[in-house]
Amino acid sequence: MARSGRKRGRRSGVSPLPQEAAHQWSITAERRVILSEDQVADIHQRTLRFLQDSGMKVQSARARQILRGAGADVDDAGEMVRMDPALVEQLLSTAPSGFELHSRTPARSLYIGGDKVAFMSVASAPNASDLKGGRRPGNYEDFQNLLRLSQQLNVVNAFGGNPVEPTDLPVATRHLNCNFDFLTLTDKPFRLYAIGATRIEDGLEMNRIAQRLSEVDLETRPVAITNVNINSPLLIDEAMLDGLIAMSSRNQPVIITPFTLAGAMAPVSLAGALLQQNIEAVMGIAITQAVRPGAPVLYGCFTSNVDMKSGAPAFGTPENVRAIIAGGQMARFYNMPFRASNANASNAMDAQAAYESLFSLQAAIDGQAHLVQHAIGWLEGGLTASFEKMVLDAELIQSLMLSHTPIDTAEAEYGLDAMREVGPGGHFFGTQHTLERYETAFYAPILSDWRNFGAWTEGGAPDAFARAAQISDGLLQAYTEPALDPDIRDELAAFVAKRTEEGGALDA
Amino acid sequence: MARSGRKRGRRSGVSPLPQEAAHQWSITAERRVILSEDQVADIHQRTLRFLQDSGMKVQSARARQILRGAGADVDDAGEMVRMDPALVEQLLSTAPSGFELHSRTPARSLYIGGDKVAFMSVASAPNASDLKGGRRPGNYEDFQNLLRLSQQLNVVNAFGGNPVEPTDLPVATRHLNCNFDFLTLTDKPFRLYAIGATRIEDGLEMNRIAQRLSEVDLETRPVAITNVNINSPLLIDEAMLDGLIAMSSRNQPVIITPFTLAGAMAPVSLAGALLQQNIEAVMGIAITQAVRPGAPVLYGCFTSNVDMKSGAPAFGTPENVRAIIAGGQMARFYNMPFRASNANASNAMDAQAAYESLFSLQAAIDGQAHLVQHAIGWLEGGLTASFEKMVLDAELIQSLMLSHTPIDTAEAEYGLDAMREVGPGGHFFGTQHTLERYETAFYAPILSDWRNFGAWTEGGAPDAFARAAQISDGLLQAYTEPALDPDIRDELAAFVAKRTEEGGALDA
Repeated sequence: MARSGRKRGRRSGVSPLPQEAAHQWSITAERRVILSEDQVADIHQRTLRFLQDSGMKVQSARARQILRGAGADVDDAGEMVRMDPALVEQLLSTAPSGFELHSRTPARSLYIGGDKVAFMSVASAPNASDLKGGRRPGNYEDFQNLLRLSQQLNVVNAFGGNPVEPTDLPVATRHLNCNFDFLTLTDKPFRLYAIGATRIEDGLEMNRIAQRLSEVDLETRPVAITNVNINSPLLIDEAMLDGLIAMSSRNQPVIITPFTLAGAMAPVSLAGALLQQNIEAVMGIAITQAVRPGAPVLYGCFTSNVDMKSGAPAFGTPENVRAIIAGGQMARFYNMPFRASNANASNAMDAQAAYESLFSLQAAIDGQAHLVQHAIGWLEGGLTASFEKMVLDAELIQSLMLSHTPIDTAEAEYGLDAMREVGPGGHFFGTQHTLERYETAFYAPILSDWRNFGAWTEGGAPDAFARAAQISDGLLQAYTEPALDPDIRDELAAFVAKRTEEGGALDA
Repeated sequence: MARSGRKRGRRSGVSPLPQEAAHQWSITAERRVILSEDQVADIHQRTLRFLQDSGMKVQSARARQILRGAGADVDDAGEMVRMDPALVEQLLSTAPSGFELHSRTPARSLYIGGDKVAFMSVASAPNASDLKGGRRPGNYEDFQNLLRLSQQLNVVNAFGGNPVEPTDLPVATRHLNCNFDFLTLTDKPFRLYAIGATRIEDGLEMNRIAQRLSEVDLETRPVAITNVNINSPLLIDEAMLDGLIAMSSRNQPVIITPFTLAGAMAPVSLAGALLQQNIEAVMGIAITQAVRPGAPVLYGCFTSNVDMKSGAPAFGTPENVRAIIAGGQMARFYNMPFRASNANASNAMDAQAAYESLFSLQAAIDGQAHLVQHAIGWLEGGLTASFEKMVLDAELIQSLMLSHTPIDTAEAEYGLDAMREVGPGGHFFGTQHTLERYETAFYAPILSDWRNFGAWTEGGAPDAFARAAQISDGLLQAYTEPALDPDIRDELAAFVAKRTEEGGALDA
């Protein structure tokens, strides 16, 4: 039986969609490079020099104290931190090359590193949209439905954060409700927000409950992940640093993502934006290792360009692709897991959304990303989480990952008997060779419509947007909650109630 | 001044579109492989054995006579031709690794081989479509407008054939009108149809007139190209062979393209479809070299799969991508130029059209195709030539080719002074470094719309289809005929009149 046949969910009756079964993909494509080894080394050396001579602004007295303790040159009045090259290299040397990210359902756990890649759902969009309802401000109902749809889509390995911000929930306790939903409506790992320490601590506690761990166990077992965006250029704010410290001190993974949009928050030149990305990433990574040597951390890349006419960010551009490939090279130079994104700036679920996304997604895979943020459902430069875009991205990811499958050239696969049987000018539809293989020989698409024009027109001429809407609706209708021990559920609910009564996160 | 600035047409005032200037792109991306060297050698060896033991059907007495003369084993009653391995390898050895394809405007001439790639406009669609008029049967007005639009789009290096079939022109003389239009409405090289010898001979004569060549000069100078589709499986028909002989005997280039859609005209397994593609391509190439050693020829790859539910061809699938990469490896093994396609099966100018196209286009570049057929404007599995898809494909091609540009890491490009000047938390919009570079730092898209949602909505919320329609209309309005010596024009018109009076092509 061929690969596809074994994996397709439709065979197990789990899903009405012919999607590939839930698993973590491996990257079998060759890695792409765009920088020479000399260029990689040059960017590293310039990074060391910059951190020694100029440094970065670190807006947390606690973080500066930790860095001073590690040997950094700290200016508390100016909040500046400089480090000599030996210190930087020593700190980088303890960052691990990979780690397990555990879920409450063991089969959903992920390895972040090696040749594995994990695809995360869109995060932090202020709006949601679908064909029926159009674009609307983030709300709790859409938040929950985007969780359900992501749970249904097998390409989603984890949640990069709140797919859409449920702005109708109070800010201080929102994270408690969201975490509860992540742990009950889904069973995939998810990101906690590094906005102060409390949100992180609440999130770790809820994952500890869900995974039935002791306090001590937790520190040997990554159960959640966070993302720390550098406030580019060259600044990390206090709330982010408090979150970082709360995670790294418990041995929980942190993604360090410089927000280096060339022309706005970074130099307009790609070399400059990449150098700044590297300076900022190295500083962030060094802080995690100063907090706790060996704490899991990822090198994040978000470098793209802005539209110089409007200042709006652009994605899936040649500059974005080149930055992702280069970013992957820098992460491999440091032997650390790499985070990239599947991004686009389209306002509609149209051809632009597809090609900009596919360019950035392909770059993420070619650049050997271990974690692809916003891989499913991101639209409009991240301002909208789209139900239909989730379906489109599932098709893009499956197609891309399967397009690198080696070709089986076992004797029987050549079909020589069939060729001789059919002979010149015949056709292969009825041959034994075809009958034995036709059900699983080819990729079964989710979204592509291969009907002829007549049948398609009679069927209402639905474009990819309309078909994706129908598929999304079907998946939501077929959704059922994943199994969860009722005792765990009760304990989580009690925790949420208690922490809500206490006021939630009051620190940021 | 950066690369983009030098090349952009908008700077010269030639075009209202910010497209990259007309030139032939080089492939700087690393070549992808999917077959091991052993697998490549295995496919070659099995090809030799198959041609020796089983052979192919060659439905032209003249072609069989040429092959018998070259040493092949010919069965005239069964129209079968077998060749021993030494003969096949001897014939393959004379095929050149590349050649110049000349245009009547020297700057439009192309090199087919090496690291160069040429993108050809969609060919032979029975229908045309645009947003305004929808889908309609091929007609002469659309034919001419698709020529004009292709002339305007700088990514179009050549015409793969009639973009749409002008079915309102009589079959026997249609090629005369079409050739006249290719030579007057455009100045890019174009394909002649290998449907009998007469169409080829008329086409070569008209190119000879346009390029002011002697009969003798013509044989040292490729001026047109043709495509010979194998009637897969394992058969080449008489009309195609007559066309092939007419081209190769004059030293004019021929693309050999097996029509190996796995599951229908080839085995359902990828290994089988690739083996059959190779058998058929090698036979076709061998025939060109038996006709005239050294005649330019390309190894063509069209292998994809059909939808086993409907029998409809599918493109941009993982199978299609893998076949194109493997096909490129076989062509490189034979040291011959490689032809692939930019294909999709979408009925609409939507996300599916974009992602299926981009998958196949990317595979063509990764597989080091020297000629990409149907690169601009193909929709609906080739049944429709779309004006808007031409604009979309121009964006895909430009973005893809520029995404492999090396990163300039000259000292000034790092922007270290700007980083120090801006400092933590600032922005780069007003720095000298930005002001010096912002106009040409980033790719200027043709189709992507980066306005924010509000501005886009106020602008009518046009999706990529609507915007492409507007761009296509603008390019057609701005169209002017390329310069042509009036004497040449008169001579061409006289030739068309004479040949029309004679009845045109009466042989097929």
